Amino acid sequence: MIRLVLIGTGNVAKRLFCLWKRQDSVSVVQVIGRNRNRLSHFEGATAITSFAHMVEDADIYLLAVRDDAIRELSVQLSGTGKLIVHTSGTVALNNLSAKHRRGVFYPLQTFSNTRPHDLKNVPICIEATLTSDLKLLKQLGSSLSDCVQVVSSEKRKVLHLAAVFANNFTNHMYHISQELLDSEELPHELLQPLIEETANKLQEFNALDSQTGPARRGDEATWDQQMRLLKNPRHKDIYKLLSKSIRTTYVKKL
Amino acid sequence: MIRLVLIGTGNVAKRLFCLWKRQDSVSVVQVIGRNRNRLSHFEGATAITSFAHMVEDADIYLLAVRDDAIRELSVQLSGTGKLIVHTSGTVALNNLSAKHRRGVFYPLQTFSNTRPHDLKNVPICIEATLTSDLKLLKQLGSSLSDCVQVVSSEKRKVLHLAAVFANNFTNHMYHISQELLDSEELPHELLQPLIEETANKLQEFNALDSQTGPARRGDEATWDQQMRLLKNPRHKDIYKLLSKSIRTTYVKKL
Repeated sequence: MIRLVLIGTGNVAKRLFCLWKRQDSVSVVQVIGRNRNRLSHFEGATAITSFAHMVEDADIYLLAVRDDAIRELSVQLSGTGKLIVHTSGTVALNNLSAKHRRGVFYPLQTFSNTRPHDLKNVPICIEATLTSDLKLLKQLGSSLSDCVQVVSSEKRKVLHLAAVFANNFTNHMYHISQELLDSEELPHELLQPLIEETANKLQEFNALDSQTGPARRGDEATWDQQMRLLKNPRHKDIYKLLSKSIRTTYVKKL
Repeated sequence: MIRLVLIGTGNVAKRLFCLWKRQDSVSVVQVIGRNRNRLSHFEGATAITSFAHMVEDADIYLLAVRDDAIRELSVQLSGTGKLIVHTSGTVALNNLSAKHRRGVFYPLQTFSNTRPHDLKNVPICIEATLTSDLKLLKQLGSSLSDCVQVVSSEKRKVLHLAAVFANNFTNHMYHISQELLDSEELPHELLQPLIEETANKLQEFNALDSQTGPARRGDEATWDQQMRLLKNPRHKDIYKLLSKSIRTTYVKKL
């Protein structure tokens, strides 16, 4: 059994804790957090403590905290030679304090809401300096997912950037489309089959081959009509830039 | 049984034809198209003809053609008082020639590739001037989908614009993320669970509440790092504009 101390009380920490609680191969022996309110979420299920207190002995110390807190917390963790691991997509392994053994455990998923889903198909990107630590992280990852991958800090940064386009920016497109539906009192559900088909289609075709719509066709009458329909100047700017970018992508390929 | 003449040989025409061929309630008695090669796709399964030829008698004449061809083709259709119906999201009902009865039959889906899926859950937006025609279009829609909706030309335009954001622009985001993955020789599959979760989450939460990522958090260190990682100036512009738009959306709400 892997003994683990979880540092952090946000969405990632909560989800991981909840998944590990259901099984025997990983024991979260302690959760550490500054925020008393958030910490109380874990109370009764494991030992909890704020940062000033003693840290339990464990095989892995998992930092599920804001990117800009990682370095400082890894320095603050008492002793030396512990295996300290962060969960960030963008922070390099060597950002962790060198007084400890270092690793990365990055689940490639969005954790905004408390959806109860497991991480069975979610890639978990791991990295470590020592081979034995990498083995341990592989074991930890396998407790949650069938897709544990070794990914270097450099590649992980690009992967995270790709995820920003595929998740953050995509979700913002959904938000704008929902605002447009609201403006005509049309229900959001109307777009759901289209949205799911757009996502699922990637299992079979590259996005490059799946592109449709007025920008792809170079249909200027529709561009004009839609630019006039948009009232929010921010939405107009986005419509203009993305249509132009789609157009450029396909004109280039001709 | 509804007798239908299909005008057009593109992806929409092909998919509709294929679905109607499987059932008894609709009979496609003729397919009309200019493009001889594309027309041959339908050969043997129904009568085919190029535009110059005689048009069969039918209950509905369905125009599944480019937006800018709709008006002209509706004028060219011989006789008067036929029910002529287009499949466009953006073209108003009254764009069709007034010498015929007019209608719209707009399936809200993307038809880029020949995916064999049915349209059971896909909204079909219908419109007609006469109540009896609306009833016929409702019957036609029900042959394909459980979600047939009456939507006015005005609302349909906004719905189509929302679909441009939710499908066209989203797919372009996927394309950029796939380019980024390619640059590091990372497999596209890595992002699939994230992409599907982002889409599926909309069943439970508004996109506004699901937003995560550096722009939402106002994490400037990651912005800087990711702007430096992007090599393509077009991608930089998109990153900048969408991050700013996300930031504005949430700063406004604070």
